Amino acid sequence: MHLRSLLLLPLLAFSLIGCKEDSTPANQAAAPAQTFHWKMVTTWPKNAPGTGTAAERLAERVNAMSAGRLTIKVYAAGELVPALEVFDAVSRGTAELGHGTPYYWKGKVPAAQFFGAVPFGLSTLEMNAWLSKGGGQALWDEAYAPFGLKPLTAGNSTMQMGGWFNKEINSLADIRGLKIRMPGLGGEVWSRLGATTVVMPGGEIFTSLQSGAIDATDWVSPYNDLAFGLHKAAKYYYYPGWQEPQSVLELLINQKAFDALPADLQAIVTEAARAATQDMMDDYVYHNALALDELKKSGTLLKRFPDEVLQAMQNESEQVLGELAAQSELNGRIWASMQAFQALAIPMHALSEKELYDWR
Amino acid sequence: MHLRSLLLLPLLAFSLIGCKEDSTPANQAAAPAQTFHWKMVTTWPKNAPGTGTAAERLAERVNAMSAGRLTIKVYAAGELVPALEVFDAVSRGTAELGHGTPYYWKGKVPAAQFFGAVPFGLSTLEMNAWLSKGGGQALWDEAYAPFGLKPLTAGNSTMQMGGWFNKEINSLADIRGLKIRMPGLGGEVWSRLGATTVVMPGGEIFTSLQSGAIDATDWVSPYNDLAFGLHKAAKYYYYPGWQEPQSVLELLINQKAFDALPADLQAIVTEAARAATQDMMDDYVYHNALALDELKKSGTLLKRFPDEVLQAMQNESEQVLGELAAQSELNGRIWASMQAFQALAIPMHALSEKELYDWR
Repeated sequence: MHLRSLLLLPLLAFSLIGCKEDSTPANQAAAPAQTFHWKMVTTWPKNAPGTGTAAERLAERVNAMSAGRLTIKVYAAGELVPALEVFDAVSRGTAELGHGTPYYWKGKVPAAQFFGAVPFGLSTLEMNAWLSKGGGQALWDEAYAPFGLKPLTAGNSTMQMGGWFNKEINSLADIRGLKIRMPGLGGEVWSRLGATTVVMPGGEIFTSLQSGAIDATDWVSPYNDLAFGLHKAAKYYYYPGWQEPQSVLELLINQKAFDALPADLQAIVTEAARAATQDMMDDYVYHNALALDELKKSGTLLKRFPDEVLQAMQNESEQVLGELAAQSELNGRIWASMQAFQALAIPMHALSEKELYDWR
Repeated sequence: MHLRSLLLLPLLAFSLIGCKEDSTPANQAAAPAQTFHWKMVTTWPKNAPGTGTAAERLAERVNAMSAGRLTIKVYAAGELVPALEVFDAVSRGTAELGHGTPYYWKGKVPAAQFFGAVPFGLSTLEMNAWLSKGGGQALWDEAYAPFGLKPLTAGNSTMQMGGWFNKEINSLADIRGLKIRMPGLGGEVWSRLGATTVVMPGGEIFTSLQSGAIDATDWVSPYNDLAFGLHKAAKYYYYPGWQEPQSVLELLINQKAFDALPADLQAIVTEAARAATQDMMDDYVYHNALALDELKKSGTLLKRFPDEVLQAMQNESEQVLGELAAQSELNGRIWASMQAFQALAIPMHALSEKELYDWR
């Protein structure tokens, strides 16, 4: 034992509460271990299945891994700020964290739309791979940096369904005049094909479908749609969800708050987000399978969009994405990077995932 | 301060190296925060791409999140124990952790084969979902508990390829007499269809293929196979990898060592494993896409097994899996649980993943 340690003992006897065995040399003054109490604002209703629960579990994981040195209080949409103000709230530091979906911020960061769901784009497995290994994360960081924000994936709700319809879509002609609630890039595509797209809060969808104020709506996939009761307000459940072949849920982190954390807590937040991605995929894959079965038993009629319609959707999607890419140099780089990876991923998955799902 | 803590002070004076300030209230006797130095034995060569690197990254993550309170030294196969002794080494506590693939332990735990790769079984997304949400983890725990081991997924190498061949497989007749290196349940199926399956260490595969001592071998997928150079020893690269539609890589944890960790370090190990699963999937999906492109450019000929062969493989697989399920009551429950989930996952993914991959 160092002599200096012995000299410190009387002091230790009064200041120590518990002594930790540690490899820190006794002649270094250890910084006091701070605790941090963070807020996470979300775009979800309280404990919304899949999304809201994932945000809660992320907070629990960080709390457990940090032994309470970093606690996170989760706020549902509207509790601290409305859903659509989550981005701003984290940007200005009202909350240190936000959990939501990137396309909500398209008014501020048009590039955000590439990091959520891209029509006819990468699959769930591919999007995660592009973000973490293919340069996607660096581009995402670049897009959000001007707002003092660091984004991370913290969930993926996997591939969606096409939506709930009370009118059949047998040809392109059936789209013209259709009143549909559909946000994001998918909504833009419907709109260009002649539908009237409507924006409305989640709470109004059910009654609007029932009353005929709208003919159709997208939502998510069986897990959420069954819980929401949409099968009681619409006859047909269309597939595939071409508009969202996967859907990234993001953790927004206030960069200054993150920088103020010690390195171990930074690592804990980062890995908790990665674990949340895995956890949410598992949640959707498992519960979608069970919920689809329930929907079928309840009488939901499954219908597939005709090829003619899907082809028109794809053509319009390419147009819309091309225009978004042309809006800025950064957008152009993001789209080029995604497309380059997609061009390599398609032939690989044609030999693997496609073969598996086709053989069954 | 508790009296007991005061009594401990003379002891502390000799045992302490450095002490940390802590936010624990002064009237609580905090247990001394210990540091733990663990060993992880693996079944992989040093820094094997995808698998060995995932084990190293898992250790780095735990180290970073615990601020060095739990360090993990990773040993390649043969450094501390041979690959096939990893299970025993962790069971008896020679190492606290092991990283490998479940089917290696089939001699000790036949049920382990259900938790690795199941021919014509669940996809990557589905296997993770079944394990974490569908009851799979509890069954896996039950299978390994008699050995004092706790298993967790810590990686998935996603869907494999069918293997490297120097003879064409145009019909079932071409299988009879074929000398193929193929382990696991897939090897058993080839064997029942008349092939001669050979077991050999990785280091001998290349020369055996070149010399004609074997006609074919499976390995993994483009990422690993390109690095291994198998395209230089075989003409044909067959797909699909029906024998491994996904492949779980597992973290074996010595249960006593895990129980001795404080709760925060337990959470860190658990979440690091979950993050490793996500990380490895990303790694394989990304690098497989790039490597397949390189293989094609290098002249590798891609070939698909004929439907007649795949159907025979599937029939034999069902037979082999049925026999495995009949071996014990636990095996029967595992197989019933997997099949029940697969029966629900297939129709769900027929409307989503299958549609996406087919449309491209």
